[in-house]
Amino acid sequence: MSANQQIVLASRPTAKVSAANFRLTEGPVPKAGEGEIVVRHHYLSLDPYMRGRISEAKSYAKPQDVGAVMGGGTVGEVVESRHPGFAVGDAVVGMGGWQDYSASPGEGWRKVARNIPLSAYLGVVGMPGVTAWYGLNEICKPKPGQTLLVSAASGAVGGVVGQLAKRQGARVVGVAGGAEKCAFVRDELGFDACIDHRSPSFAEDMKAATPQGVDAVFENVGGEPFLQALRNLNDFARIAICGLIASYEAAPTVLPDMRLFLVRRITIEGFIVSDHPAVWPKALAEIGGLVASGQLKYRETVREGLAAAPQGLVDLLAGGNFGKMVIKLV
Amino acid sequence: MSANQQIVLASRPTAKVSAANFRLTEGPVPKAGEGEIVVRHHYLSLDPYMRGRISEAKSYAKPQDVGAVMGGGTVGEVVESRHPGFAVGDAVVGMGGWQDYSASPGEGWRKVARNIPLSAYLGVVGMPGVTAWYGLNEICKPKPGQTLLVSAASGAVGGVVGQLAKRQGARVVGVAGGAEKCAFVRDELGFDACIDHRSPSFAEDMKAATPQGVDAVFENVGGEPFLQALRNLNDFARIAICGLIASYEAAPTVLPDMRLFLVRRITIEGFIVSDHPAVWPKALAEIGGLVASGQLKYRETVREGLAAAPQGLVDLLAGGNFGKMVIKLV
Repeated sequence: MSANQQIVLASRPTAKVSAANFRLTEGPVPKAGEGEIVVRHHYLSLDPYMRGRISEAKSYAKPQDVGAVMGGGTVGEVVESRHPGFAVGDAVVGMGGWQDYSASPGEGWRKVARNIPLSAYLGVVGMPGVTAWYGLNEICKPKPGQTLLVSAASGAVGGVVGQLAKRQGARVVGVAGGAEKCAFVRDELGFDACIDHRSPSFAEDMKAATPQGVDAVFENVGGEPFLQALRNLNDFARIAICGLIASYEAAPTVLPDMRLFLVRRITIEGFIVSDHPAVWPKALAEIGGLVASGQLKYRETVREGLAAAPQGLVDLLAGGNFGKMVIKLV
Repeated sequence: MSANQQIVLASRPTAKVSAANFRLTEGPVPKAGEGEIVVRHHYLSLDPYMRGRISEAKSYAKPQDVGAVMGGGTVGEVVESRHPGFAVGDAVVGMGGWQDYSASPGEGWRKVARNIPLSAYLGVVGMPGVTAWYGLNEICKPKPGQTLLVSAASGAVGGVVGQLAKRQGARVVGVAGGAEKCAFVRDELGFDACIDHRSPSFAEDMKAATPQGVDAVFENVGGEPFLQALRNLNDFARIAICGLIASYEAAPTVLPDMRLFLVRRITIEGFIVSDHPAVWPKALAEIGGLVASGQLKYRETVREGLAAAPQGLVDLLAGGNFGKMVIKLV
């Protein structure tokens, strides 16, 4: 390939993001400067956090610049190296952005093994997996026999949360959108139960699935299903706020009465996995081992070609993915 | 005294509590059964948590029974003992309730020293003081130089929170109702600043008093001033929810947008000091020493006579106290 296709943020969405907020462009394939590597991206990652980055609104990271190549996680192969730590042919994961190639001094890139599919390093054995590990082990901390509720349970993060929690002896109840996702969460991922937030009997379904109440919540979604979970909390419940995808392009999630904190002695903690670099090696080693040995399952929605990324993000934000969403470039 | 005056809960308040919800009655002075003590109460404690107890609504403790003597903390002197651990003349603190005397097997009563005024064992060197200690040291954890915001800063809990935090090197900003309370908080308790939530310039006053933002909040009140505090939070701020007195008889305190948890990586934790018996001895020893040596200051609103208790509670809930409110019986 003699050109480097790229997608830039063309404009900030005013309400819902659409593919028209992005523009496909093309540049030359970059060359490695002194101390640099060039990576050919095989997959790029689409993640809910990107919605925050393309807004003007204050968020936890600086916004994505309009006119610049859209940032994002990528996994691929080193095709040129003038860096002593990388060789041509190394499989690497890093923040290469929405383009075919990237050149960099290697900062933030790490070499990965090829014993599992490369795309897994964008999901279960990557940022979403570490996110799951952190929120579960540092915030939710379910004791054996306690009930953990996980929203977006078939997603890149939720699926890992529930499987790790099951291994720790918790009763794990997923929340997902639609019967197909719920069946996957129960039958393939091995959750004790999964309830469909689109069901008209959702409130009763949650009560039935959590007969001992809810001791911990790993929240990826927000909105009314989350408020329903709050009504089932036990004393001293712990809630990890990982994402609020239901509110990114819709009404905010409102906590209607803070007395809940007192009556139930609740802890709610919001977190961003990039704040906690110290846990990454441990979490990745644990999850990577479980994936390699087939003990941790995951699912991907794979779309083909860089040009599919904008609509992929739109669909992801609407729950149109099933498991981790990635764009396959090679 | 040959009779034991008592106040019982006559009816549950439907909206705001009033003195008419209580009834003064009289019984015989109790006698100590085998293994029991009789305590003559010198002071009884009025505390915001009592509002929750007299409601039907689910709270963290079982509701006060209608027709029964109103429960509550008391300090006094053992006047009869058939218990090996207590002698006549011992000063003791425990849950004697709204009456002149109580008989009990001594459970929950502890002996206290007379080197400080007995009423202090209902406030600064009692439940409110330990509450302050726990929320500060286990949840807010301000680092030296960080800014801690404390509401109801002149109150029984808030005043201790701020003084302990100052000793730890935090910048401490109080919130209180009215110029007189604010002056006391600043000039007597030594807070760095105190802002009046009744002031029309409250929002600007808070911004001016927290030029580096807010790293921790010890919340006793809730309502709009609390929401204003949320707007000034720094990343990784910790919020201890100790009380929400503004909402006990008014509209609930609503968190308008849970994205705050993510954007700022906030932790909010509700707590009740009675859940944490392990910290009491340590906290009481520390605070008691500081009070005895004059290094920790406090203020009391003292009303005279058991019959003053119902209106005292009404006034406390309306912010009509100035520091810890107690009823003096002897």
